[in-house]
Amino acid sequence: MVTQRIVELLRNGQPDESVTIKGWVRTKRELKGFAFIEVNDGSSMANLQVVLNSDLPEYEAVLKQVNTGASVEVTGVLVESPAKGQRIELKASSVKVYGEADPEKYPLQKKRHSFEFLREIGHLRSRTNTLGAVFRVRNACANAIHQFFQEREFLWVHTPIITASDCEGAGELFTVTNLNLKDVPKTDNQEIDFSQDFFGRRAYLTVSGQLEAEVMAMAFSNVYTFGPTFRAENSNTSRHLAEFWMVEPEMAFCDLQGDMDLAEEFLRYIFKSVLEKCPEDMEFFNQRIDNTVLATAENIINNQFERITYTDAIALLEKADRKFEFPVEWGADLQSEHERYLAEELFKKPVIVSNYPVGIKAFYMRLDDDEKTVSAMDVLAPKIGEIIGGSQREERLDVLERRIKSQGMNPEDLWWYLDLRRYGTVPHAGFGLGFERVVQFMTGMGNIRDVIPFPRTPLSAEF
Amino acid sequence: MVTQRIVELLRNGQPDESVTIKGWVRTKRELKGFAFIEVNDGSSMANLQVVLNSDLPEYEAVLKQVNTGASVEVTGVLVESPAKGQRIELKASSVKVYGEADPEKYPLQKKRHSFEFLREIGHLRSRTNTLGAVFRVRNACANAIHQFFQEREFLWVHTPIITASDCEGAGELFTVTNLNLKDVPKTDNQEIDFSQDFFGRRAYLTVSGQLEAEVMAMAFSNVYTFGPTFRAENSNTSRHLAEFWMVEPEMAFCDLQGDMDLAEEFLRYIFKSVLEKCPEDMEFFNQRIDNTVLATAENIINNQFERITYTDAIALLEKADRKFEFPVEWGADLQSEHERYLAEELFKKPVIVSNYPVGIKAFYMRLDDDEKTVSAMDVLAPKIGEIIGGSQREERLDVLERRIKSQGMNPEDLWWYLDLRRYGTVPHAGFGLGFERVVQFMTGMGNIRDVIPFPRTPLSAEF
Repeated sequence: MVTQRIVELLRNGQPDESVTIKGWVRTKRELKGFAFIEVNDGSSMANLQVVLNSDLPEYEAVLKQVNTGASVEVTGVLVESPAKGQRIELKASSVKVYGEADPEKYPLQKKRHSFEFLREIGHLRSRTNTLGAVFRVRNACANAIHQFFQEREFLWVHTPIITASDCEGAGELFTVTNLNLKDVPKTDNQEIDFSQDFFGRRAYLTVSGQLEAEVMAMAFSNVYTFGPTFRAENSNTSRHLAEFWMVEPEMAFCDLQGDMDLAEEFLRYIFKSVLEKCPEDMEFFNQRIDNTVLATAENIINNQFERITYTDAIALLEKADRKFEFPVEWGADLQSEHERYLAEELFKKPVIVSNYPVGIKAFYMRLDDDEKTVSAMDVLAPKIGEIIGGSQREERLDVLERRIKSQGMNPEDLWWYLDLRRYGTVPHAGFGLGFERVVQFMTGMGNIRDVIPFPRTPLSAEF
Repeated sequence: MVTQRIVELLRNGQPDESVTIKGWVRTKRELKGFAFIEVNDGSSMANLQVVLNSDLPEYEAVLKQVNTGASVEVTGVLVESPAKGQRIELKASSVKVYGEADPEKYPLQKKRHSFEFLREIGHLRSRTNTLGAVFRVRNACANAIHQFFQEREFLWVHTPIITASDCEGAGELFTVTNLNLKDVPKTDNQEIDFSQDFFGRRAYLTVSGQLEAEVMAMAFSNVYTFGPTFRAENSNTSRHLAEFWMVEPEMAFCDLQGDMDLAEEFLRYIFKSVLEKCPEDMEFFNQRIDNTVLATAENIINNQFERITYTDAIALLEKADRKFEFPVEWGADLQSEHERYLAEELFKKPVIVSNYPVGIKAFYMRLDDDEKTVSAMDVLAPKIGEIIGGSQREERLDVLERRIKSQGMNPEDLWWYLDLRRYGTVPHAGFGLGFERVVQFMTGMGNIRDVIPFPRTPLSAEF
């Protein structure tokens, strides 16, 4: 008999159908002469209720074993459920217990646990309702991202994790090494001798795949990355991870306008996809975690995003009838409070702010004609602030060289990046999206550590 | 006018259709009063031939610019091509040159380049026919992997890249650190003081996501990883990378038999998918790189794999009418020559060898009843040898503890992994597949450095 997934049975199972399920007991209720167990196999938020009658073979022995956390195989017949809130239940004809879970020791008894506590048992927390829902949504979102780009014929390119380039994120880079740290080899002038290291030079964990994605876009036109990135930033906040996944599309023959169009279409697509794929999980988040997540998703799906320039944004913030903690001033970066004001209060929908001052943006962003701003854009979402950051890239060799030097970097370190402008350069653009931020945004989960299976943060790398 | 992809025009473009294309010039041929350029946008192996007539605006100026490597936008009308080997060509009415490529300097002139040379210009090599085809096939294969698992409702889980666990791959681990390497902090007894490091302990780059995938399978039943893994192995061979991508499905309530079934179905699916998605690229590999790749793919798709035990394999090797370099002996690992003999000569199709001696396999593989072998399996493919390695996992707490100790490891370091056997343990199984090995196998590419965009190998981390 083929094992059936509980999500399928709950949706389409018919009375009198013979089935076998395999999963873990969530709860047990003993009554006189019979008992209920709720079984979950991770395929859905909802459990399948199983009825154990006392005429079941070895009823008493089984009953002692099927505590919360135990793993079981149940064969039986589906019947209409007299209970409220469930269409069907499973009348067991045989129960096999694979593994017990001592009720005195198993940490996940039937009660609410704090997310802090659950992080300490990261190897078990996916068995709870909330984390189960999070990782189903995470999967649905990840899959939607691939589908979006593959449908549009973008190539998924794997940019390197280990990199010798430190041109972005200086100071926030993890070093990757094979040197003997007890006795680090030194050169004659007492510098670390990285020529003896595995790669013959100092190597780091990547902070972004963008520069390499540009390489690939110059051959395949449209590409995207989807992989892990790293920050050695000592930020113990609910929004920072040392290891997180990032999505970075890069498009040749594309300008800032096209970049914004793609970002908007992309966000709409992935929200729509997740709502379709995980309706019960999203309903759960709306009921239990944050009662605005469904409205927010609908807002994203159904509204054209507002588009304003940074200069307009500053003017609007200056006119705002409220006090900000940080001053509003042309040339300074927008703070979270400013971003939220624009998206949540003023426009009440996602806002794309573009053409930021050159002084606060990266060297590779295309200089606008006035030379005061660059063709950058950020998508600001209600409740979360910046969710996407992108730009048209500087495709003009001379301008790019000038910008690199003006930031105190050496153009020779970026010889290959500059070659892309020497040989067949084209206008191109792309953006970056922090995957965990999006999952947090979708689910309403307050702490980013609860939307990645095994979070890496300062002083924490368990499991 | 919307830009059209060259692959689409070559397949479905009709004479008299007005189109705009954007791409890079591959070759230019000047004739009396007109010229041909071949334009490629990365969407296909084949170029679109563009005819430039001398009545084109600024014909002479354009002609000087459209050298190999230059980027162009061409608008015009499709016409039937009088030339052999192409159905249509594009009669240009206007050409815009975005970026030139100096014929004296651009390294990719029209001639054969060695793969060694191309590796030195890794930022440009994707613009060649072969590497272009490789990365289209790589993308198609990666996408097929996701499709295969998503169709079967496996969750894609992101296991950690940075890990504090060194229980696999000791000696082949890269250290990830934020310590000041010029002055590494030491404890009182002169050990490195990793408590001062970012994670408060020594951290490494992962060699496998399996143990964490098991955690997730114990909540969601069926999961898979698809992410980067690392080996600090000083192997300068055509089959080793320090950074490579791995696929690792893990299934609860699954035994070795089910594991083998999935592996077989999986390989068949991805080969079929790639043949359908990239027929021209696969044809190219068959013609230019290895004239057996299409036959091999058909062999995988159309044959049931042979399944034999390790013990049977040894008996067959002992009976083989040929000399092996390495001795054939029960208890020793199969060498590449043995694996290839079985798959290529004896069975002439993929072979799954199972139940290997306990002494040569990892601690987590399930001990068979005879206690001499474990429920491990390797899929051996003609021409490449081992392509998949998997096992049923040891789900019995006492046996697992014993095995961990017998390998000189401390069970306490694996407390969370053992908890999976303490609470609701179930039979489970999974396998690992080196993604680059598969792409190499599919394409016939001789060196693994040519199937990943930016290879990381000893002394090499450029780009």
